[in-house]
Amino acid sequence: MPKLSAVELEELITQGFPDLRDDAWRIEDVRDHYVRVRMPFHRSNLRPGGTISGPALMELADVAMYAAVLAMLGPVVMAVTTSLNINFMRKPEPGDIIGECRLLKLGNRLAVGEVTMHADGDDALVAHAAVTYSIPPKEQRPA
Amino acid sequence: MPKLSAVELEELITQGFPDLRDDAWRIEDVRDHYVRVRMPFHRSNLRPGGTISGPALMELADVAMYAAVLAMLGPVVMAVTTSLNINFMRKPEPGDIIGECRLLKLGNRLAVGEVTMHADGDDALVAHAAVTYSIPPKEQRPA
Amino acid sequence: MPKLSAVELEELITQGFPDLRDDAWRIEDVRDHYVRVRMPFHRSNLRPGGTISGPALMELADVAMYAAVLAMLGPVVMAVTTSLNINFMRKPEPGDIIGECRLLKLGNRLAVGEVTMHADGDDALVAHAAVTYSIPPKEQRPA
Amino acid sequence: MPKLSAVELEELITQGFPDLRDDAWRIEDVRDHYVRVRMPFHRSNLRPGGTISGPALMELADVAMYAAVLAMLGPVVMAVTTSLNINFMRKPEPGDIIGECRLLKLGNRLAVGEVTMHADGDDALVAHAAVTYSIPPKEQRPA
Repeated sequence: MPKLSAVELEELITQGFPDLRDDAWRIEDVRDHYVRVRMPFHRSNLRPGGTISGPALMELADVAMYAAVLAMLGPVVMAVTTSLNINFMRKPEPGDIIGECRLLKLGNRLAVGEVTMHADGDDALVAHAAVTYSIPPKEQRPA
Repeated sequence: MPKLSAVELEELITQGFPDLRDDAWRIEDVRDHYVRVRMPFHRSNLRPGGTISGPALMELADVAMYAAVLAMLGPVVMAVTTSLNINFMRKPEPGDIIGECRLLKLGNRLAVGEVTMHADGDDALVAHAAVTYSIPPKEQRPA
Repeated sequence: MPKLSAVELEELITQGFPDLRDDAWRIEDVRDHYVRVRMPFHRSNLRPGGTISGPALMELADVAMYAAVLAMLGPVVMAVTTSLNINFMRKPEPGDIIGECRLLKLGNRLAVGEVTMHADGDDALVAHAAVTYSIPPKEQRPA
Repeated sequence: MPKLSAVELEELITQGFPDLRDDAWRIEDVRDHYVRVRMPFHRSNLRPGGTISGPALMELADVAMYAAVLAMLGPVVMAVTTSLNINFMRKPEPGDIIGECRLLKLGNRLAVGEVTMHADGDDALVAHAAVTYSIPPKEQRPA
């Protein structure tokens, strides 16, 4: 079961990013091997044609996976992304984007998760990512 | 051969991003099927432990591929990322990062490229990406 | 809803592969945007240490996606893989492997799906793949 | 520099696969962080339309990366694929396919490589793969 609450996760993620806008990430739900993250709309994420930028969606995928790993392991700051694969499927309208991460594996050294992303209020997927993180071995994790 | 110069590419990329910092991307070299992009250091790209953030590197990969596609096709605004795969290999020190994109395929509908990334002044790869773009068919491209 | 049954899909897949062993692929379930495929155990898929080979799992992912695309579109022979990303998570014991494909997008030109793989009788994931296919535009598909 | 010759690599790879056809893989060149592998044409790799199957190319990418890792580390049987990403770019005619693997990182736990594939006698890329392997830590490798 998760070791951190949504509030604790949101604080932990915000602390690490000194320049971050206050409204950058909202942790909305934390369950066993699952986290839901909201990326509030911000005009710096817009692209020509009025859609959300690809890099903003990639960052959402990375943050959702990071949050899911921290939720299960506790505050292991040294979890780092080793790979990310993303497919973009639809162009979302300007608005909040929801990212849902499901951890598929939480091993001794490696975590694997998938992240689905959709616009708030529209179930159609806008992107799907598979993300891997290198995690500290058990003896170096918080109790 | 390229249809756009480094200066033209830099303008085109900067125009599309109203909120972009002035120093966000520098196009340093444009050749046949090849573009080199500099991502100047900015503290908002820093992460705990003093390294460059993964999402900043993903954005560099995406921008380098976008620049390489525009360089070869001319200003086709509707080129959009369809997928991106990245492997992170080393944590770079704070500083500029160089991204080099080589186009592997420029088809009728799809472009495929690879992007290698390294810290300025250090040849060791920090990340490697494969990126695909959906591009407009020939009859819809600028002459 | 699917246009082909499990029996029709199995015939279609077997026809295209003249050298295929009779027992290579079993289509076990076909639903809306979903197919389940069984890869019966064969010793040519074994690897040192007594596990199923990575390339056999990659082929299962590709076949499951192909079956899911054909199921929804009808017998469009010209559907071809454009990319595949796979993460290996656990080494399965020798035995049958089940691949389940969910179509995430079925667009005008591109299909995107994810495939989860597990050993028969054990829910733990052995691998997870994201696969994209180029598909013929609507006017070239069977009615 | 490589610890194994092309002949030694070819023997090592063939040994591990009891059912393999005699002509399955030819190691043609071994250099520092580089291996070139030939996949001789075999009709079981053909697909409808007269092209080489995607799974055959995926297996070539995996074998080329395995050979490159073994070449540099010596016979470390426990090197296993952790992920593979491949983009298919052109359909090759029936014939031999050449796979060239360049190791991008050979770390303490993880190796990353890229594999380019082209038809024998035609430089145009048919596929490009990025492959990661989990490798044994230094103290468990052959001297």
